[in-house]
Amino acid sequence: RIYRIASIPGDGIGVDITNAAEQVLHKLSSASGSTFEFAFHTFDWSSRNYLERGWYMPPDGIEQLKRFDAIYFGAVGWPDPDVPDHISLWSLILPIRKHLSQYVNVRPTRILPGTTSPLSNCPPSSLDWVIIRENSEGEYSGQGGISHEDTPYATATEVSIFTQVGIERIMRFAFETAKSRPRKKLTMVTKSNAQRHGMVLWDKVFYQVAEEYPEIEIDKMLVDAMTVRMVLNPKSLDTIVATNLHADILSDLAAALSGSIGIAPSSNLDPTRQNPSMFEPIHGSAPDIAGKGVANPVGAFWSAAEMVRWLGEEKAADGLMKAVENVTANGIKTKDLGGDRNTQEVTDAVCAELESV
Amino acid sequence: RIYRIASIPGDGIGVDITNAAEQVLHKLSSASGSTFEFAFHTFDWSSRNYLERGWYMPPDGIEQLKRFDAIYFGAVGWPDPDVPDHISLWSLILPIRKHLSQYVNVRPTRILPGTTSPLSNCPPSSLDWVIIRENSEGEYSGQGGISHEDTPYATATEVSIFTQVGIERIMRFAFETAKSRPRKKLTMVTKSNAQRHGMVLWDKVFYQVAEEYPEIEIDKMLVDAMTVRMVLNPKSLDTIVATNLHADILSDLAAALSGSIGIAPSSNLDPTRQNPSMFEPIHGSAPDIAGKGVANPVGAFWSAAEMVRWLGEEKAADGLMKAVENVTANGIKTKDLGGDRNTQEVTDAVCAELESV
Ligand SMILES: CC(C)[C@H](C(=O)O)[C@@H](O)C(=O)O
Ligand SMILES: CC(C)[C@H](C(=O)O)[C@@H](O)C(=O)O
Repeated sequence: RIYRIASIPGDGIGVDITNAAEQVLHKLSSASGSTFEFAFHTFDWSSRNYLERGWYMPPDGIEQLKRFDAIYFGAVGWPDPDVPDHISLWSLILPIRKHLSQYVNVRPTRILPGTTSPLSNCPPSSLDWVIIRENSEGEYSGQGGISHEDTPYATATEVSIFTQVGIERIMRFAFETAKSRPRKKLTMVTKSNAQRHGMVLWDKVFYQVAEEYPEIEIDKMLVDAMTVRMVLNPKSLDTIVATNLHADILSDLAAALSGSIGIAPSSNLDPTRQNPSMFEPIHGSAPDIAGKGVANPVGAFWSAAEMVRWLGEEKAADGLMKAVENVTANGIKTKDLGGDRNTQEVTDAVCAELESV
Repeated sequence: RIYRIASIPGDGIGVDITNAAEQVLHKLSSASGSTFEFAFHTFDWSSRNYLERGWYMPPDGIEQLKRFDAIYFGAVGWPDPDVPDHISLWSLILPIRKHLSQYVNVRPTRILPGTTSPLSNCPPSSLDWVIIRENSEGEYSGQGGISHEDTPYATATEVSIFTQVGIERIMRFAFETAKSRPRKKLTMVTKSNAQRHGMVLWDKVFYQVAEEYPEIEIDKMLVDAMTVRMVLNPKSLDTIVATNLHADILSDLAAALSGSIGIAPSSNLDPTRQNPSMFEPIHGSAPDIAGKGVANPVGAFWSAAEMVRWLGEEKAADGLMKAVENVTANGIKTKDLGGDRNTQEVTDAVCAELESV
């Protein structure tokens, strides 16, 4: 079986780590006993090309992506005054998430073997979370505007939208995730004390959906207090559900607490499977180290493993994660994890592990 | 000179720690050489009274507060289905901040002597921050609403408002704060890559105001990446400016990284001094330990010291902070800081220090 993968390396280290992920995926599919292959089609949608030709995706970009089984995404964003971040993101990653109905963003966090948390009382067994991020509405609706621009009374708005259907579907996914994990525990994050309209609906729908899952232990946290709990009592958490913005913030914090933003994966899922889902490490384009060949490819490999799992190849996904964990356990790590290896060295080590399995 | 203080203990441990703060402030003013006194007037505005009589503040509550030199606030919020948090907060703390033009919320964070950070590589010298929180608009505008309530197509909004004048004044305060500190460094936090209207104005005004302060070293962080930097590179930060919601989240995280939310103070300031400013520890009402006499009063004392400083009594403020630091240095601490003392024991120890000065 051949899986057709749309590959969008994008900007900065997105290019380095997509290349690394493709090497590892090819090795995985050529392992003995494998019954599948990957066919990558690379899209040159990037800030560099935008600066040259004035567009990121062509008008039928979304339609083109729909023909693939999955999308692998590197990173987008480049420090150039001619392409501010809100242009690059709203021209590429955000429209893909939205138009392909990828309404769930799954962000697992663990401390990998051979790595340590910056928290002094946090052994690997104390930090094993999955953050379920609402990925289609909320603070990322894009609505709002500015009046009286360039005057002393300029006034701008950002409008967050929360809908019953949007909240219900993310809550259901979160409860199912909690149910699939041993601890059967879901923590819902909100800021409904200060935000008294949409956030109150968010809370209400959470308790509605909770009634369908009496076997799940639930609790509710305010987003500010949640950061405190993540730092001081990581063991008390398991599955977490939060809005688009809150989960964006909390998942970066989670990655830092697990050792490095360089290892953290994300899956942008359309659970209905009507559209391809998209897999991307959460680290971003990291202009300061772009093109130097030193980016940590672990987040890219973990994202690739999640893609393989989503495609139905559970065993191969487990094998890839095992290979990555053997490599970190052996101390073969990039600088952000306290090692001294470069991207290609880590990639080669993972490929070697895959060969020996 | 007599300072008239409006004291609002509010809910839960707000009562315990306001009581502790008043003891310490009385002791401070009766120290030899003191040229001032405090006259406290206590307002019984709380969730308990709301449940009995149906209101938090009387209609002229704000007018009453205007007659004081400063306001000392304990905490508000109580887990009772008849008083959801968005009712309690929008009936008490948020209207005070707004109607008294307390548009700045100052939140310093340090690791106090005798306490430790949960981060393993973070000695006290690596974490010394001041977060300047916009306190009057942004995500706390209160605007928004819900349509089609209780139907499957319910839709709710939260509207964040950002104005040129609102952003300019908080930026100016932040630059002045940075200027008053040795490192002359200001980090501005934003999420303008995803929020492309109000947040873009926020960025723009930051760079406008920055031109007036060429001596300040500036940088810009996305709020998600900011959490990573706080955890992995705390030493690189000094003064920080962020929106109402972002700074709410980051200041709780900062408190956790400094050891406990129980030590963190806040000052809600009207820098024009047309209205009284308000001082409150950031920990909240903590229903689980309310009334047990075990709450950490350090955040309350630090907030009291900031109040004394704002009233112009610099030397007394320094003396109070020194007393608090001597007490923590001697290991006289509550449980959240790894100690075994209760609220009154810590309070007595601080009073004793003040006597011996
Ligand atoms: C690049 C940006 C739009 C994005 C987000 O905010 O969603 C990133 O921070 C992420 O977490 O995937
Ligand atoms: C109680 C609540 C409204 C408040 C806030 O969100 O501002 C609190 O979290 C704080 O930080 O002062």
